Amino acid sequence: MKKDDCIFCKLANGDIPVEALYEDDIVKVIFDASPASEGHVLIIPKEHADNIYELTDEQAAHIFKTAKKIGCAMRDGLKYDGMNVVQNNGEAAGQTVFHFHMHLIPRYKGDSVNVTWKTGKLTEDSLKELKKRIPVGL
Amino acid sequence: MKKDDCIFCKLANGDIPVEALYEDDIVKVIFDASPASEGHVLIIPKEHADNIYELTDEQAAHIFKTAKKIGCAMRDGLKYDGMNVVQNNGEAAGQTVFHFHMHLIPRYKGDSVNVTWKTGKLTEDSLKELKKRIPVGL
Repeated sequence: MKKDDCIFCKLANGDIPVEALYEDDIVKVIFDASPASEGHVLIIPKEHADNIYELTDEQAAHIFKTAKKIGCAMRDGLKYDGMNVVQNNGEAAGQTVFHFHMHLIPRYKGDSVNVTWKTGKLTEDSLKELKKRIPVGL
Repeated sequence: MKKDDCIFCKLANGDIPVEALYEDDIVKVIFDASPASEGHVLIIPKEHADNIYELTDEQAAHIFKTAKKIGCAMRDGLKYDGMNVVQNNGEAAGQTVFHFHMHLIPRYKGDSVNVTWKTGKLTEDSLKELKKRIPVGL
């Protein structure tokens, strides 16, 4: 369903015109208007979902098949040095538009993209505790 | 197919024992041994693929359905503030193990995770040029 006040619903469904890179029944792929690097695109589902948790299985499956397809075309066409897939859920994770979108970000040596973290150490105790806390399969 | 010298092939297929969070015929989900934050997991396909470009459509579809499923369980169990999906392709993008893996990184206020970039501006000319260079649908 479309949400009336959602800019990505409008872009994905043609209420705001945009020159898409790719489009099918389930997704539209557009260039990010504020790109991190040359060729930065967004995969946006046409049906509204706020985030990954709200996707249907069909949307989720199609989105990453599309990421692979578009990623291959970008690699062939852009001759970049690498590519990050980034998808943020929640303000604390950097999400700013609350309609699910997946970033495909070409990487070039010396670019401004920063996808890093300090690493900790997983202990046997914390692993066991985490497994108890995460209700997979329920 | 398995690659003999690939540590993620060994982890995904049981040649190196690991206490997985989730497993099915296509993927294994394990906790990152050097976590960015509490609950950081990796989704790893059992069949070897170096990166996103080498995935089969079936793998790609299943991986992101799994990301949604595990993401929902993590959200429910960990009470985090947000969650980044990160998947790196190529050394220039920060890939260090050359067996495809997708990071699900819980975010907590004040953590050390940095997923940021300086934004540029997409011009009408660059959009047209990029569309010409990226051979989608070929």
